Amino acid sequence: MVVVMKAHATEEQKEHVREAIRAVGCTPRDIQGAEISIICLIGETRGLQPEQFEMIPGVDQVQRIQRPFKLVSREVQPNNTVFEVGNVTVGGNGVVIIAGPCSVESLDQFRESAHAVKAAGGRMVRGGAFKPRTSPYSFQGLGEPGLKIMKQVSEETGLPTISEVMEPELVPLVADYIDVLQVGARNMQNYPLLNAVGKSHRPVMLKRGLSAKIEEMLLAAEYILAGGNHNVILCERGIRTFETWTRNTLDISAIPVLKKFTHLPVFIDPSQAVGHAEYVGSASLGSVAAGADGLIIEMHPNPEKALSDGDQSITPTAFSALMPQLRAVAGAVNRSIA
Amino acid sequence: MVVVMKAHATEEQKEHVREAIRAVGCTPRDIQGAEISIICLIGETRGLQPEQFEMIPGVDQVQRIQRPFKLVSREVQPNNTVFEVGNVTVGGNGVVIIAGPCSVESLDQFRESAHAVKAAGGRMVRGGAFKPRTSPYSFQGLGEPGLKIMKQVSEETGLPTISEVMEPELVPLVADYIDVLQVGARNMQNYPLLNAVGKSHRPVMLKRGLSAKIEEMLLAAEYILAGGNHNVILCERGIRTFETWTRNTLDISAIPVLKKFTHLPVFIDPSQAVGHAEYVGSASLGSVAAGADGLIIEMHPNPEKALSDGDQSITPTAFSALMPQLRAVAGAVNRSIA
Amino acid sequence: MVVVMKAHATEEQKEHVREAIRAVGCTPRDIQGAEISIICLIGETRGLQPEQFEMIPGVDQVQRIQRPFKLVSREVQPNNTVFEVGNVTVGGNGVVIIAGPCSVESLDQFRESAHAVKAAGGRMVRGGAFKPRTSPYSFQGLGEPGLKIMKQVSEETGLPTISEVMEPELVPLVADYIDVLQVGARNMQNYPLLNAVGKSHRPVMLKRGLSAKIEEMLLAAEYILAGGNHNVILCERGIRTFETWTRNTLDISAIPVLKKFTHLPVFIDPSQAVGHAEYVGSASLGSVAAGADGLIIEMHPNPEKALSDGDQSITPTAFSALMPQLRAVAGAVNRSIA
Amino acid sequence: MVVVMKAHATEEQKEHVREAIRAVGCTPRDIQGAEISIICLIGETRGLQPEQFEMIPGVDQVQRIQRPFKLVSREVQPNNTVFEVGNVTVGGNGVVIIAGPCSVESLDQFRESAHAVKAAGGRMVRGGAFKPRTSPYSFQGLGEPGLKIMKQVSEETGLPTISEVMEPELVPLVADYIDVLQVGARNMQNYPLLNAVGKSHRPVMLKRGLSAKIEEMLLAAEYILAGGNHNVILCERGIRTFETWTRNTLDISAIPVLKKFTHLPVFIDPSQAVGHAEYVGSASLGSVAAGADGLIIEMHPNPEKALSDGDQSITPTAFSALMPQLRAVAGAVNRSIA
Repeated sequence: MVVVMKAHATEEQKEHVREAIRAVGCTPRDIQGAEISIICLIGETRGLQPEQFEMIPGVDQVQRIQRPFKLVSREVQPNNTVFEVGNVTVGGNGVVIIAGPCSVESLDQFRESAHAVKAAGGRMVRGGAFKPRTSPYSFQGLGEPGLKIMKQVSEETGLPTISEVMEPELVPLVADYIDVLQVGARNMQNYPLLNAVGKSHRPVMLKRGLSAKIEEMLLAAEYILAGGNHNVILCERGIRTFETWTRNTLDISAIPVLKKFTHLPVFIDPSQAVGHAEYVGSASLGSVAAGADGLIIEMHPNPEKALSDGDQSITPTAFSALMPQLRAVAGAVNRSIA
Repeated sequence: MVVVMKAHATEEQKEHVREAIRAVGCTPRDIQGAEISIICLIGETRGLQPEQFEMIPGVDQVQRIQRPFKLVSREVQPNNTVFEVGNVTVGGNGVVIIAGPCSVESLDQFRESAHAVKAAGGRMVRGGAFKPRTSPYSFQGLGEPGLKIMKQVSEETGLPTISEVMEPELVPLVADYIDVLQVGARNMQNYPLLNAVGKSHRPVMLKRGLSAKIEEMLLAAEYILAGGNHNVILCERGIRTFETWTRNTLDISAIPVLKKFTHLPVFIDPSQAVGHAEYVGSASLGSVAAGADGLIIEMHPNPEKALSDGDQSITPTAFSALMPQLRAVAGAVNRSIA
Repeated sequence: MVVVMKAHATEEQKEHVREAIRAVGCTPRDIQGAEISIICLIGETRGLQPEQFEMIPGVDQVQRIQRPFKLVSREVQPNNTVFEVGNVTVGGNGVVIIAGPCSVESLDQFRESAHAVKAAGGRMVRGGAFKPRTSPYSFQGLGEPGLKIMKQVSEETGLPTISEVMEPELVPLVADYIDVLQVGARNMQNYPLLNAVGKSHRPVMLKRGLSAKIEEMLLAAEYILAGGNHNVILCERGIRTFETWTRNTLDISAIPVLKKFTHLPVFIDPSQAVGHAEYVGSASLGSVAAGADGLIIEMHPNPEKALSDGDQSITPTAFSALMPQLRAVAGAVNRSIA
Repeated sequence: MVVVMKAHATEEQKEHVREAIRAVGCTPRDIQGAEISIICLIGETRGLQPEQFEMIPGVDQVQRIQRPFKLVSREVQPNNTVFEVGNVTVGGNGVVIIAGPCSVESLDQFRESAHAVKAAGGRMVRGGAFKPRTSPYSFQGLGEPGLKIMKQVSEETGLPTISEVMEPELVPLVADYIDVLQVGARNMQNYPLLNAVGKSHRPVMLKRGLSAKIEEMLLAAEYILAGGNHNVILCERGIRTFETWTRNTLDISAIPVLKKFTHLPVFIDPSQAVGHAEYVGSASLGSVAAGADGLIIEMHPNPEKALSDGDQSITPTAFSALMPQLRAVAGAVNRSIA
């Protein structure tokens, strides 16, 4: 249940509502939008009547929320969440293209990648410094030196950065260097980590778990918003199915489903989804046409020499050939490339 | 293994090759393309040497085919299969939009549907006369009277028709009335049925089974081509996964994968895939951008009164609003709407 | 909705009920059990009141059936279905062990197999004469000569036989030679075939489709019972999942779920499920402990020379070593080996 | 590649081997078994020849390990891992039955549960103090006070305890109170957590991820062993599939597959797998017959009042009725109940 306040409700009126919420054994939680102000009831609300709150001065209306998620719900916040990362607007009409290598391997490799991203029109650069790897014997990332490389190259190019954080206590460190914190698919339900990024001032990209239902993804995002961080990007990156000719199965229909139920921006990672460079273009174009708010693409200067995920990385040449096609498709659905 | 003949090879030279194939215990099978002529070896070819056949007059080259499918393979036939259904070209640059109701319910209902398809720019009309239904107590279709309605409306509108056939002995009956025979998802590995449509003169749309791997779909198509019918459309219609907020999961990456391995046209059924009318538009646009050669969409004049699959049927109004968007996206990827 | 008649209800009273059912627009369908007699209402029953029928003389009680399946439901028939196949009781306390080769390859091969089955204590012999194969170029079975071999060996050994039938028009032919008709996983929703075996006098083993939900399996069985054939065995044989180290994933929990919802006997095919001979024993023992009414195991005199599915076939030696273990486990759960 | 030392090899000989390993750019890692001693090569070994190491004094033989996992592999350690938890032997002939509530709710509730476990013959008690919950608004566990309750009840009853740990920095705290650390399904690939429990002196139960392949589970265990902790229990608890009538699908065939590839003990969590109390008995019996080394069952004094997972918790009465059946089945496969 949520209480929607009138446009000019006073802080005193809001506090009155919060007290009424506490009086029935629930916890109030504020959501302050650009134009409206909402107070959520967290707790058991089934026995409550909307009328109990509707009569309080300053209250516009009271709504029951059917789904178990609240803060991420379009019922609570009908307008799209829009926020800035550096000079890039996320969640607006412009589709944001992020690209870069799976792992940061060296300053030269990452610098070359970032310049290629920028030259082709990409707006943000990705790179992994802490890498979750299935085998303990695989390359695990450069760690903090990798973050420093990303920071340096970001300053050189003006491109904001995104990188994965894998454990709660490293959130402040990664947030020092990086503009968007990524929570990886394997950690979508790592609740201590979700709580930690929920307290960060950095925007978060939450990747869908390999076998996570859409509802579970929204509830994972709810943890982050409930922690106080409202700048969350949801990223579909392929789900695990029986098909073996692609690495995962890109669930493209998740785009309209998510756009219906939540106000958060929805991105697609076509590279993780298909797992082969030759299919990345098709999946990218399909995603933009289907309504994605952004893409995060693996691109490596020398895919065959990449320390991780070389098979699914496209070359700078392929990326720069793809960009005008993305621009055309975005235009066809009344979007632009940011 | 396949033997590719020279452009001007004579029938006598081909017969020579066929005899050489029989002599090693295999069965020859001809594929006659627009410009080239190929003879496949069906049987155990692992012990054979290409040289055995390369020296025969009229032979251009001999290739080993790695995959278990042959006739559907792009290795054997590099160029896209293109064929006509009435006045509609399938498999060419133009993306073919098919629409219509799940079931033929009455002359009025089907006529109204077909006129709406035509008015919006659709090129073919779908409808079910024999319906595979999970429960024996659900509406099973009108049967032959439904086929007659489709035939009559096809003549009135000039739109070719597509309808499902469920058993081998009904193939000739359905082929009498209908332009394209559909093999449904539940029957993708019904081999007697595949053999039967393989002997029909009508083109066939083969729908992917709910849990069929792409390779299994290609092998099912191989049955039809091996029966002599080369005019086959492959149709991805969603696979079964753990996600429950869509009816199935549209495997959009199947488009570039199929286009890589086979020369057959690839269509998408967005309605069966997503299962909710509100998501059909997004899935349709994504499919065309990803490279689909056509769409088959459920559209019903009164979805809420439909005898089957009303939830996933869009209205004529929604369909006619979608068509210009499809046209724009097709243009953005250098295709047209047929 | 079903009408349960009193123990000594007359035919005249039953006809009275049937007419009352027809009068409300439904179709009556009789189920005659050993002790009770039931008349089902097929059609739209939501608006009806039980009282309409309870007052008719001879009626004991009227029940609403919640699930879409009726004839297979334990609500309609609380007692287990038990029937005889030759001298073998299916569905009783005894667990029925069926074994034999995937394909009938020759009289010698099948005779040797059947004698090994019998010697170890198996009660029925399996074998394929018409084989559904993913590739059109794989061995498709001996056809009718294979059926003749099975008939001959059955007469020699006294073991009843089970074999797959793939198309409706072959049902009478297969039923001439074979004791139990198998509907394979690929054909679980081949409705013309389900209708055809529903009219046969032979018991039917219905295998679960690769991606069929339990409810869909019960509805497929409903087609057979609705056709008049009540002697149906349900067989779980592994479902398709993401795991690749087994051929399929044996859904052993389907046993208690099916036993709760239906009165039909539940068998397990461990060979198709696991796909590797070395895991068949473990899966067989687990299935019997979990409550299976029978097993159907692939066993071949020379697995490495089998024309199909050699990897998953156990040897006669392994089979005869497994039988006493199965006997011990059956005893531990108060069952016997039939 | 692994170097197997002779029975009486000296420490000096072993150091010689380690230096030779370092000299080729790899890292040596010792595994000390009861009778044999092995030194693994971690790193790139493809270019190496076994002969390089076979000639070093004290070396018995050198083996190439095909799979990406080493320390968990039966190739490296052929004998089952057996260890003690308090007075309970894990991994031996005795099947270990663990039971208890999903969440520790109060001292009374947990004490009552533990006494019921002990009375029925269970050997260890489970309980959750830190609960991973899909929604941020669900009960998240009592935290440290819950651990204290478990410790107190363990001392009263003599039953060792098992409880989940969700974040690396809490490992020492949980290890202070609890005998076996559980890594939950959602955290199977939480590598910082795997590293942390790998450094703990407590045995670890690693639960299979919802969509983890068996190979991925073995590699996750490899992280723990590579950290130095060899006392690991693998626990299959159901995988995510399309079937909805059970909560997950119990992959019972994982038992023989895991027993083939690894020496680690394999347990089953039937409660999480099936999700309904009424199916837990069947799944438990099937698991023991299939070769499980132990079970971990949810049991609650009042399932309908449980704060989490009440649907899948059996009652103490049902548990004590199940135990003699488990004993009988264990006996039938030449095992005992520990």
